[in-house]
Amino acid sequence: MSTTEDLIERFFQGDRTACARVISLVENEADSCMEIMDALYPKVGNARRIGITGPPGAGKSTTVEKLTGMLRRQKKSVGIIAVDPTSPFSGGAILGDRVRMSSLFLDPEVFIRSMATRGSLGGLSRRTKVVSDVLDAFGTDIILIETVGVGQAELDIMNTTHTTMVVLVPESGDGIQAMKAGLMEIGEIFCVNKADREGADRLVTEIEMILEMRRDETVWKPPVIKTQAREGQGFDQLLAALASHADFLRENNLLEVFREKNIRAEITDQLENSFLSMLWDNPDVKNIYEKKVEEVIKRASSPGRAAQEILLLLRKRSLI
Amino acid sequence: MSTTEDLIERFFQGDRTACARVISLVENEADSCMEIMDALYPKVGNARRIGITGPPGAGKSTTVEKLTGMLRRQKKSVGIIAVDPTSPFSGGAILGDRVRMSSLFLDPEVFIRSMATRGSLGGLSRRTKVVSDVLDAFGTDIILIETVGVGQAELDIMNTTHTTMVVLVPESGDGIQAMKAGLMEIGEIFCVNKADREGADRLVTEIEMILEMRRDETVWKPPVIKTQAREGQGFDQLLAALASHADFLRENNLLEVFREKNIRAEITDQLENSFLSMLWDNPDVKNIYEKKVEEVIKRASSPGRAAQEILLLLRKRSLI
Repeated sequence: MSTTEDLIERFFQGDRTACARVISLVENEADSCMEIMDALYPKVGNARRIGITGPPGAGKSTTVEKLTGMLRRQKKSVGIIAVDPTSPFSGGAILGDRVRMSSLFLDPEVFIRSMATRGSLGGLSRRTKVVSDVLDAFGTDIILIETVGVGQAELDIMNTTHTTMVVLVPESGDGIQAMKAGLMEIGEIFCVNKADREGADRLVTEIEMILEMRRDETVWKPPVIKTQAREGQGFDQLLAALASHADFLRENNLLEVFREKNIRAEITDQLENSFLSMLWDNPDVKNIYEKKVEEVIKRASSPGRAAQEILLLLRKRSLI
Repeated sequence: MSTTEDLIERFFQGDRTACARVISLVENEADSCMEIMDALYPKVGNARRIGITGPPGAGKSTTVEKLTGMLRRQKKSVGIIAVDPTSPFSGGAILGDRVRMSSLFLDPEVFIRSMATRGSLGGLSRRTKVVSDVLDAFGTDIILIETVGVGQAELDIMNTTHTTMVVLVPESGDGIQAMKAGLMEIGEIFCVNKADREGADRLVTEIEMILEMRRDETVWKPPVIKTQAREGQGFDQLLAALASHADFLRENNLLEVFREKNIRAEITDQLENSFLSMLWDNPDVKNIYEKKVEEVIKRASSPGRAAQEILLLLRKRSLI
């Protein structure tokens, strides 16, 4: 039996070390990646994927932590993927947060993984997706994905979750800022966290007004819930809202729609990726490319023209 | 004379309407895009490109506005590209901001353009780059590019500027948050804005400490400047810092390094883009793709396997 087969067997026996190893392999696109994902794929599709996003400092990590605690009491296994570079789960925490979260780190039914946010752009959402798939195949009931919800890559990640929770705080005009940042358009559940602070009710009203204006084709009316994540307040309503959104998705057959959309995105992404590798792995392509770069540096051509000429040359020489 | 030639002629005569039209055409990748960029390209490379980034609400737009005013008094023409969805320049402003900025909108030597931040991921930094090139060829002296500095796409945009300014405010632990968000790594000039507020000095010290730890290969020591953008305070130092960084780039021949890096990125991007269009424009490819999507939906294959099989099929049939 090959090492990979052995690894996969241990993975399906529920071996956490094997799961961590599988995640590393697929995340780094190791050679065995395809064999692994082939084996895992039939088991993918049972986990509920919930995205948690919002501005830095809104209390997303604390929300994730409390939510995880409650889900654990319901005997659900939980996977946490931290894409947010400011999240304590990402290891970027100040000491207090880390200590506070140590209970989760020790729970064998909680799997925590942080994603590096630097590096290739397209890569981030692809890697987050594949790590979610691995946790899903591992039998994780709920996958919580935490991002900072401002950038485009982060919005793309939220697009791969079943439910998007937006966490805001009653401070410095967050409502208006958030609307503009596109958060209002993607949220399916809104938490107004630190709801004991001044301005919480105003923020709730503001969000509800904006949602009223939004009124798109969807029939889902996003609830706005006041929470105090540190104290766990409002979390019964939050769990109820998550349950209703799950019902809504099921009743409207949106889980199938969602699955097909994700499959298409994943095949497209991988196909384009391989197709581009094919291009760059060819030494002739590299030579032609370097020659054209020189021409543009000397202002003998423009980048667009150079790209077009490279393509024509490659075609002429039947290199593509 | 074709319409495009005519447009280019008017562009080089300094016709603002022609410039706006050219921007629209290249931004939307119109058919004439290549002809236009070919004509413009010899004139690209004289503008100074400055990125302004930071969290929402830090005062980036006000900083851009004041800076523009000062540059205008030095008789420099200014281009403003707002990628930040929360920026008043992006048209997402609340009324007060818009009124306040109307003086800039009326100045014929100030060109303001906002970029839509939704849509394709890779597209955002590409479009920002090409719009900068157009403004550059139009003879704009200084191009200010405003983004919200959290997402990956936005960090990519900052990579295409000569100088990156990070604007922070003494609030809610911005220093620590910013460090984690990767802002500390990309900043070449730091503004602690709203410096009359409590905590400004602490934030300055914090940033300086982090920069001390950073100490990478570069010999540039990023200055940390206290500003009050609304009052224009600290802007003499800011202008001086921008001038020193320009000197630094020139003295170390970094402008050439920067130019080559950008040329490579642009050719690569356009080549990959055309290469992928070539793939998807082929109806046979679409047919094979749809067949494989069906297989994955039925769990007869995994997305990775499907992508690989599509590639093999295409090769076998000499479609690529």
